[in-house]
Amino acid sequence: MSRFWSDQVHRLSPYVPGEQPKSPDLIKLNTNENPYPPSNRALAVLDRALGERLRLYPDPGSAALRELAARRHGLEPEHAFAGNGSDEVLALAFAAFFGAREGFEGPLLFPDISYSFYPVWADFFGIEWKTVPLTDDFALDLAPYCADGAGQGGIVFPNPNAPTGIALPRTRIEALLEAVPDRVVVVDEAYVDFGAESAAPLVTRYENLLVAQSLSKSHALAGLRVGLAFGSPALIAGLDRVKSSFNSYPVDRIAERIACEALDDEAWLETTRQRITQTREWTTGRLVELGFSVLPSSANFVFARHREKPGRELMDGLRAHDVLVRHFDKPRIADHLRITIGTDDEMKRLVSVLETLLGT
Amino acid sequence: MSRFWSDQVHRLSPYVPGEQPKSPDLIKLNTNENPYPPSNRALAVLDRALGERLRLYPDPGSAALRELAARRHGLEPEHAFAGNGSDEVLALAFAAFFGAREGFEGPLLFPDISYSFYPVWADFFGIEWKTVPLTDDFALDLAPYCADGAGQGGIVFPNPNAPTGIALPRTRIEALLEAVPDRVVVVDEAYVDFGAESAAPLVTRYENLLVAQSLSKSHALAGLRVGLAFGSPALIAGLDRVKSSFNSYPVDRIAERIACEALDDEAWLETTRQRITQTREWTTGRLVELGFSVLPSSANFVFARHREKPGRELMDGLRAHDVLVRHFDKPRIADHLRITIGTDDEMKRLVSVLETLLGT
Repeated sequence: MSRFWSDQVHRLSPYVPGEQPKSPDLIKLNTNENPYPPSNRALAVLDRALGERLRLYPDPGSAALRELAARRHGLEPEHAFAGNGSDEVLALAFAAFFGAREGFEGPLLFPDISYSFYPVWADFFGIEWKTVPLTDDFALDLAPYCADGAGQGGIVFPNPNAPTGIALPRTRIEALLEAVPDRVVVVDEAYVDFGAESAAPLVTRYENLLVAQSLSKSHALAGLRVGLAFGSPALIAGLDRVKSSFNSYPVDRIAERIACEALDDEAWLETTRQRITQTREWTTGRLVELGFSVLPSSANFVFARHREKPGRELMDGLRAHDVLVRHFDKPRIADHLRITIGTDDEMKRLVSVLETLLGT
Repeated sequence: MSRFWSDQVHRLSPYVPGEQPKSPDLIKLNTNENPYPPSNRALAVLDRALGERLRLYPDPGSAALRELAARRHGLEPEHAFAGNGSDEVLALAFAAFFGAREGFEGPLLFPDISYSFYPVWADFFGIEWKTVPLTDDFALDLAPYCADGAGQGGIVFPNPNAPTGIALPRTRIEALLEAVPDRVVVVDEAYVDFGAESAAPLVTRYENLLVAQSLSKSHALAGLRVGLAFGSPALIAGLDRVKSSFNSYPVDRIAERIACEALDDEAWLETTRQRITQTREWTTGRLVELGFSVLPSSANFVFARHREKPGRELMDGLRAHDVLVRHFDKPRIADHLRITIGTDDEMKRLVSVLETLLGT
C-alpha cells in the first residue's frame, strides 16, 4: 500500500501465475508448457544477422505474422492481430469490447471455473462481470449465456476450457453466436491445437466473434510471448486502436520471425501434437487405475481428482518428490489437480510417485 | 467505428509511431534508432540452447534483469522494474500513479511540446491532463509545475526532452521533487545516455520519483522491446500490481538475456555514445552553416529549424532524395525537423541533400 498508488491500484487483485522454480531438477507439470523444444525451423532464425537488425524498431503492425496466421485459417490479414502473448491480446480485447457500450446493459459473463485472469482484467478495466456455473460434471453449458435476463454484456470462455480441458464442438459455439448477435463473444483457444475445433474460420460470418490463440503451448514458445487473435475487420480495428493507445510495438523483431517460422512448420506441429495426445491418453489410463476420476481432456493437461486423497495433500506429496503440478484452492475444484502432459518419462515418474503416495 | 467497440474505444486517438519503411535503401533518420548494431556480447546470446529454452515461460518478474539494471545505478533489485519497452513501462505507470487518488485533486501535467504518447495514455486510462508550455526558447521551466494552483496531480516529462533534445540538470529535478512531495514525478529518460544526468540515483531519497529508461536507443535494441523503471519500493510494487493485472510475462526469455548482456557491456555503451555525440556535434555545426537554428541537444537527435524554408517542404525534399526525417505538424514546431543522428556517412549524405535543396 502506498499513498502514491491510484485508488484503483489499491483495489486490484493481481493474477498469480504458476510457480517458475529455479531448480532444473524438478519435473515441471504445473504451467502447461510443451515438453519438447520448438521447431528446428523456428530455432534456425536465431542468428547474428537477426541480432544486428535489433537496432531497428519492429513492424508495429506485425504484418508478416498477421498475414501468415490468417492464411492458416483461410482468412485475410485484416482478420488477424498479434500481441505479446495471448494474455496481452485478451487484456486488449477486454478494454476494446467489454467496457461500457451505450445502449447495451449487463455484465460480462464467463464460467465460474475458468481462466483466473478474466476477473482480474475485468476489474482492471472497470468492467462489471458475473460468473456462470459449469454443470455438475464441469461441462460448459452455453444456454445461460443467452437466456432471458442474461443482459447484453460480452461473453468470454476458453475452448477447451481450462483447467477442466473439456472442449465444445464448433457447432455449439456457432449456435451461441447466432443467439447473441449484439454481444461480442471471445473464445480463448490457448489449448485448441491439442484436440478441439477452432472457431477461427467463423469470423468471416460472425462479426461478433473474436478468437484468441497462443503459441505458448502447442508451438512450445511460452518463453517468446506471442499471441494471436482472429475476428471481423471491425473487431481487429478495435483491438488495433487499443493497442496503439497502450504500446505500439508489443511483438519484437525476434518474436515475430520465430513465430512466423513456427506457425509455418505444420509438420512439426502435427508430430508434437500426436506425441502429447498419446502421452495424455496413457497418463489418463494410469490415473484412472490409481483411483482418479479424470475429465475428458482436449488440452495438454488433465484435470483429475482422487477418490480419497485431498488435492492439496497430493500436490504437496508430489512436490516433496520433485514433481510440480497445479492446485487451485477454490470452491468446487479444491480436490482436483491440473497436471501438464510432459514427456513419457516425466509422466512415468509422476505415476510412480503417485503410487508411492497412495500406497498402491 | 463499430457497434461492438466500447464507448471509450470510439473516443481514443491512438499514437502514431514514426514510419517504418520497407525499403532498405532509405537513410532512416526519423525514429531515433541507433545506427550501430548492438553489443557483440548481447548478440552472442542468440544460440540454439537459448532457443530450446523458449518452451518454458520466462521469469514473470525478470529478476536477473532487474538486479543488473539496479546495480548499475547503485540501487537494489526492489528499486527496479522491467517491461516490454519503455512505452509499456510508462503506460503501466500512468495507470498506477496518475489515476484518481482520493484527496489529491488536479490534472496530470506535462510539457506542451513533448512525447506525444502522454495524452494518449492519459485518455486511455481516463486521466485528466493539462499541458504546460515550454518557454519561448523551448526550455522546460519546472516552476509552473509546482506553482500555487498547479493542483496535486502527477507530473511527467522526458529528460532530455523530446523532440527538443534539451536536458535539465539533476539539481533542477531534485528541487522539483522537494517542492511536490505528495505528487508522483515520472522522468522519462529514453535519451539520457547521450548526455544528460540520470535521476535514477535519487530514488532512494525521493519516494515520489519514478525514472523510466529504454534500451532502444543507447543500446541499439529498439527491435527487442525492453524498458526499465527505477523508483522507491512502494512505486515499484505499484507497477508490479498493475503489470500483474494486465500481462504477467511482458519480457520474453530472449529479451531478458540480451538486455542483461547489453546493460553489462559498459565499454560498448561508452564507445557508441562517443561516436554518436561526436557525429551530433559535427552535424549541428554543418546545419548551422546551412542556416538552421539547432537546439542544444543531449540526445541522439537534433531539433532544427531553417531560417527560410518551411519544415514540411524540407522533409518532403529530403524524402524525395531517400532521406527520412521526422516532422510534427503541430503548433510552435511545424517548421522544425527532428533529425536522428546516424553514421557519419549518413549525416554527410543528409547535409549534401540539404545543400541541394537549399541551393547553397
